[in-house]
Amino acid sequence: MVEYQQLDATYDALANPVRRQILAELMAGERRVTELAAPFDVSLAAVSKHIRHLEQAGLVRRRVAGRDHWLRLEPGPLASAEAWIAQARRFWEGRLDALADLLTTTDAFDVTG
Amino acid sequence: MVEYQQLDATYDALANPVRRQILAELMAGERRVTELAAPFDVSLAAVSKHIRHLEQAGLVRRRVAGRDHWLRLEPGPLASAEAWIAQARRFWEGRLDALADLLTTTDAFDVTG
Repeated sequence: MVEYQQLDATYDALANPVRRQILAELMAGERRVTELAAPFDVSLAAVSKHIRHLEQAGLVRRRVAGRDHWLRLEPGPLASAEAWIAQARRFWEGRLDALADLLTTTDAFDVTG
Repeated sequence: MVEYQQLDATYDALANPVRRQILAELMAGERRVTELAAPFDVSLAAVSKHIRHLEQAGLVRRRVAGRDHWLRLEPGPLASAEAWIAQARRFWEGRLDALADLLTTTDAFDVTG
């Protein structure tokens, strides 16, 4: 996947509360699919579909050990998704700082002051 | 919109390269719809659809002045979207730090060391 397609896939994966909750659970460590599904008020089939969505986006890896399917987080794509917003914010804040500087300078020349 | 629905809408809005580019443009300041559409290799109708998507997600506000439609960024929802990932990352990193601490402590008791 090229970078912008990975960003598309990551944000798309994050755009659902069940998938965000699954990711939050996996932040604490590896989990079995059945464990992950238990707290949700949706079917195992529905949770499985969300897990596949996360796997396809490269956010989750599956490891099969006998009858157990273990899932773990792949944090790399999340870091890129955070970085995109953080970079945009820094640019935005820099613009506001520049505006504040401009207004301060303008004040200094304000003959009504 | 309740908080999780706003997060859904924000990540969904971010899951497209044209919409991210529009947001990046608006970080620099207010823009006319026609100005925004110019650099894209897609129709004005397609760009307009992406802009409506961003407005519905609460990321962009429209101001009509005569025949001009001006757009400006609403950065609040982006901050929440960044914060969710950042919080998850801190939790994840904290877990890795705890693991590193544990391994260090275990080393101290390693009789083979």
